[in-house]
Amino acid sequence: MSGVARLAIVGVGLIGASIAHAARATGASAEIDLYDTDPAVRARARALDLGRVHESAADCVRGADLVVLATPVGAMGAAMGDIAPALKLGAILTDVGSVKGAVVAAVRAQAPAGVFFVPGHPIAGTERSGPDAGFATLFRGRWHILTPLDDPHPDYPAAVARLADFWRALGAEVETMDPARHDVVLAVTSHLPHLIAFNIVAMAEDLESVTENEVVKYSASGFRDFTRIAASDPTMWRDVFLANREAVLEVLGRFSEDLAALQRAIRWGDGQLLFDTFARARRVRREVIEAGQDSAAPNWGRDDADQP
Amino acid sequence: MSGVARLAIVGVGLIGASIAHAARATGASAEIDLYDTDPAVRARARALDLGRVHESAADCVRGADLVVLATPVGAMGAAMGDIAPALKLGAILTDVGSVKGAVVAAVRAQAPAGVFFVPGHPIAGTERSGPDAGFATLFRGRWHILTPLDDPHPDYPAAVARLADFWRALGAEVETMDPARHDVVLAVTSHLPHLIAFNIVAMAEDLESVTENEVVKYSASGFRDFTRIAASDPTMWRDVFLANREAVLEVLGRFSEDLAALQRAIRWGDGQLLFDTFARARRVRREVIEAGQDSAAPNWGRDDADQP
Repeated sequence: MSGVARLAIVGVGLIGASIAHAARATGASAEIDLYDTDPAVRARARALDLGRVHESAADCVRGADLVVLATPVGAMGAAMGDIAPALKLGAILTDVGSVKGAVVAAVRAQAPAGVFFVPGHPIAGTERSGPDAGFATLFRGRWHILTPLDDPHPDYPAAVARLADFWRALGAEVETMDPARHDVVLAVTSHLPHLIAFNIVAMAEDLESVTENEVVKYSASGFRDFTRIAASDPTMWRDVFLANREAVLEVLGRFSEDLAALQRAIRWGDGQLLFDTFARARRVRREVIEAGQDSAAPNWGRDDADQP
Repeated sequence: MSGVARLAIVGVGLIGASIAHAARATGASAEIDLYDTDPAVRARARALDLGRVHESAADCVRGADLVVLATPVGAMGAAMGDIAPALKLGAILTDVGSVKGAVVAAVRAQAPAGVFFVPGHPIAGTERSGPDAGFATLFRGRWHILTPLDDPHPDYPAAVARLADFWRALGAEVETMDPARHDVVLAVTSHLPHLIAFNIVAMAEDLESVTENEVVKYSASGFRDFTRIAASDPTMWRDVFLANREAVLEVLGRFSEDLAALQRAIRWGDGQLLFDTFARARRVRREVIEAGQDSAAPNWGRDDADQP
């Protein structure tokens, strides 16, 4: 495509900053406007020269052809209230929230007629947060899920196609999905894993039987793998769990049920059940690697990288 | 120290093979003898030129100055029965099992008088298994825990010191600990994380609500972090859970209790409890990195390494 003439990004964290870097590096947008509710973040965005930084969300989106809501999920409704009056007729509006149902509910009702709202979610990120964490290649080779709505406007499909082109220009591969389906799939692949990781790391931190120093010292035996995603932004994740409650509670129930079965097998010495479960899990790892979704290097190669 | 004249390794998996590689690369042992109950593994050990490969465990350890049991934990009692009559007077006997209490119980009673049994556990590994997975630098910069016994022999402390020197020669940092304490600490830092990872990966594989293809495709959103340790050897881990039952059940109970509190917070919309828990978990990540136990690179740098 010919690119987006004016791109507005509301919320300048890891994702918002990375979009700005990527759009500039790839030429996907000629002009970039940014806004964040936090004055300190706006100051960093200026220092990082991410684009034109505005003092209000409305000023940021005025005249923009593509507006990206990149705030935590729980702040998107309020952000939408701020920008709605300033949106240009024919503008494409999207978001990058990890939950789609709740975002659609919060944003869609406030979207003015003649603005095309196409929800989205980049399956990309790191454990870092804030504008300094952003980088241009974050989306390269990663999936971007769009969850188009039932919008009867004849130009809506073209808006979806233009947005897909924008994300492809940033290096992503685009997939479309129903919003409700997205929320179930991500509850399994992302929300539950994060909850489990937060839980085990916080638990270890306040165990009485083992000191925190011991946990940290011997973390290479497995624990450290959990600490990475448990370092993710607490505000973002609080909002995700509150916004995707039903799907998370459902898969969490299943997780606990299966864990209880393993617990029982350990208590009663059922080695066969343990072995069969572990062997199945191992097979999934092979599929993740064959699908190009993770590094095949032992320990992800991190030990070699850090060896003195 | 002057090194070990003859080193015997019983069990040639990731750890046994790595000890052989490391001992040769560092000159920590002049001669290396190996044995594995699996003929196919013995053939690979020969092909990899890891040392002299024997057709019986007794032949392997005969005349050795240091004998390392590197079988799965559940096989150590039987291996000890095979080698006991062939052990040299004054030999040092150790193991690399992830559980110490059960190994001590299975091995100590069979150790002949005049053999110094010093249990041990290298806090090092990868998700790979088998002789081909071994490499010389596996132990470099990693902790090695020794759990010396209450052996009244006047030369026992010297044997512990010699074994510590051997592991330092392979690049490890040595720490001593009570066997029971080891099993509690490792239940937290290693056994529970592996059980959780096995459970979530196996659960996702047989969920009805989401296809396995979707789980794999969108695994970069968090799930893939769990698949690495869930790829570890099923036999080894079955034995670990059966052998460290009490400690694992105790920390598993605590994990489930804390998870239930998060579940309740999600159900009732208690965002503050979620935020506080997540913020605590994040702090532990910083400590793991400051302690040099993990890579500080975002996503462990694996995405950059794999970018086309």
